[in-house]
Amino acid sequence: MLTKINVSLESRSYPIYIGDGILTDSKLILTAIHSNQVVIVTDSNVANFHLKAVKQHFSKNECHTFILSPGEESKNFVELERLLSFMLENNINRNATLIALGGGVVGDLAGFAAASYQRGISYVQMPTTLLAQVDSSVGGKTAINLPLGKNMVGAFYQPQAVFIDTSTLKTLPNREFNSGMAEVVKYGLINDADFLDWIGANVLNILAQNGDTLNYLIQRSCENKAKIVSADEQERGIRATLNLGHTFGHAIETALGYGKWLHGEAVAAGIMMALFMSWKLGFLHKGQIKEIKLLLTQFSLPTEAPQQITPEQFIALMSKDKKNIDGSIRLVLLKNFGDAFVTNDYLKEILLETVENHAY
Amino acid sequence: MLTKINVSLESRSYPIYIGDGILTDSKLILTAIHSNQVVIVTDSNVANFHLKAVKQHFSKNECHTFILSPGEESKNFVELERLLSFMLENNINRNATLIALGGGVVGDLAGFAAASYQRGISYVQMPTTLLAQVDSSVGGKTAINLPLGKNMVGAFYQPQAVFIDTSTLKTLPNREFNSGMAEVVKYGLINDADFLDWIGANVLNILAQNGDTLNYLIQRSCENKAKIVSADEQERGIRATLNLGHTFGHAIETALGYGKWLHGEAVAAGIMMALFMSWKLGFLHKGQIKEIKLLLTQFSLPTEAPQQITPEQFIALMSKDKKNIDGSIRLVLLKNFGDAFVTNDYLKEILLETVENHAY
Repeated sequence: MLTKINVSLESRSYPIYIGDGILTDSKLILTAIHSNQVVIVTDSNVANFHLKAVKQHFSKNECHTFILSPGEESKNFVELERLLSFMLENNINRNATLIALGGGVVGDLAGFAAASYQRGISYVQMPTTLLAQVDSSVGGKTAINLPLGKNMVGAFYQPQAVFIDTSTLKTLPNREFNSGMAEVVKYGLINDADFLDWIGANVLNILAQNGDTLNYLIQRSCENKAKIVSADEQERGIRATLNLGHTFGHAIETALGYGKWLHGEAVAAGIMMALFMSWKLGFLHKGQIKEIKLLLTQFSLPTEAPQQITPEQFIALMSKDKKNIDGSIRLVLLKNFGDAFVTNDYLKEILLETVENHAY
Repeated sequence: MLTKINVSLESRSYPIYIGDGILTDSKLILTAIHSNQVVIVTDSNVANFHLKAVKQHFSKNECHTFILSPGEESKNFVELERLLSFMLENNINRNATLIALGGGVVGDLAGFAAASYQRGISYVQMPTTLLAQVDSSVGGKTAINLPLGKNMVGAFYQPQAVFIDTSTLKTLPNREFNSGMAEVVKYGLINDADFLDWIGANVLNILAQNGDTLNYLIQRSCENKAKIVSADEQERGIRATLNLGHTFGHAIETALGYGKWLHGEAVAAGIMMALFMSWKLGFLHKGQIKEIKLLLTQFSLPTEAPQQITPEQFIALMSKDKKNIDGSIRLVLLKNFGDAFVTNDYLKEILLETVENHAY
């Protein structure tokens, strides 16, 4: 079964295809790629499993492959320049298409390379992790990290298409799969309370990676993301709610050193902190926090921040968040399940208590 | 006298202001800058002359200054990351405005930093060289260099405004002033034969940097540039004609090492090569080539490529040009003065003869 979801952005609109085995479907892939020159960017793990299948579509093209080391540590200026220089050495021109085959790190870095090489060439996303499939491959946010902050350099730059092959999850380590579930739970929390109920009712099927269950889970996540991105491409408003748990989570990732915790793990702990703070501000009841803690725990996700990060570190790192506009830290909080809002209107003591209090 | 030219690009439209002393005009400058946080990017030469005047407008703002080493060698990944990290260290947020105060190197690098910091913040151009005033500060092309090619990484990203203070030319070295004249002559050649006549008739006034003459020269150059950019922001067609002489010129700059020749010097030699090749293809007569050679010589500009660059080097470097789309080198040539076109339809021998033949 092939599902198609449209990201509606006028001349920058594009399809998301979801299906089992679609990375081997030449006819489908070639609907989005018309270039003679193709550059596949991937990492050494993903290359082992999927590179051959993707390369075969381009036997009549000039096809180049660039392989990164796996992990968040690769999402930096050194690797970006190495990729761009590789492209120039190979005389890649503006009509070329870049393919991001892999997880969020590959997609974010390759997407920014596509955005900036010769001031912009086409690219498509072929996400192979759950996290990339439900979140980072959709919506055109591309970025690399600076030592002081995650995703601080990048572009809003939409792909030509996203191909989500659910069969790639079979080779994904459990820890990576669970990391993606943090972003899935996030959609329920910010925008789609019915979906949150569905996740809670389907935990065992999800953990068993039942095909139909995964298909629906990815589809509904992408529908949520596509709707929000279509309404607010450049994050002037509602798109910021997709950052639930991320202000805390990015601080955790940066404080520990990129790659120590997976992105979704940091987001899971960050979500718990955002729920705690929402509760302290009078919006949620304690039972809702416990419910989400249990849900995240079922996916083996952390529900509190690492003890070694001090409150001062949290505040310093969160002060560099992209949502901040006037010296105060803006946070995504919940009024209720399915109802997120962005605010900097809170007592500083409550934020301090949140980053001090490690068990919710 | 204050001249205002509009670059018409729908929601990305912006004004170019031209006038003597306008960098000291707080009221005018603050029409374009509404941020509390301001980051001035400049180089150490320009800082000596103009930084104090610009800084004084921001006594009530949070104002940061970042100073580059002068010259093309600074337009690289190392300096870009240094600037972006400086901004993050200082908790610069998305509402900030970056000011590019200087020549083309400062404008290109700072513009790309504005395009990519937190996926895009506002910036304004305050060009202080003739080249930046008539060309690089207008039109939103931002970039840095790779070792293998000029301007190969960047973004189309428009400023909020351009402030051209003609009094800054008084402190500009003659060699820099003359470099800018190559781009001025270019407008005449590609699009505005009357302007070319005017330049020829006003060489002495231009060399004497007569105020009214310079004002008119900059204004007419900006009008030409604004018209072309408004018609074709992302260089799908006519904008490529602004590259007359640049395919050859970029190869010269890259082959010699960035900064050895000034950009306009390389463009001047490149223009002569493009004219020679146009003549070989039957479009110009010999007298027209001589006329431009004389004109460029009056501005002390080189009219032939450095002897040490081999034809093979030229071809290899030109093969990486951004205009190329199918493995052949696309060139901007002239049918006549004021009538440029882009082509890859020529005998390879004629290009070879052009890059072999060093005196035209």
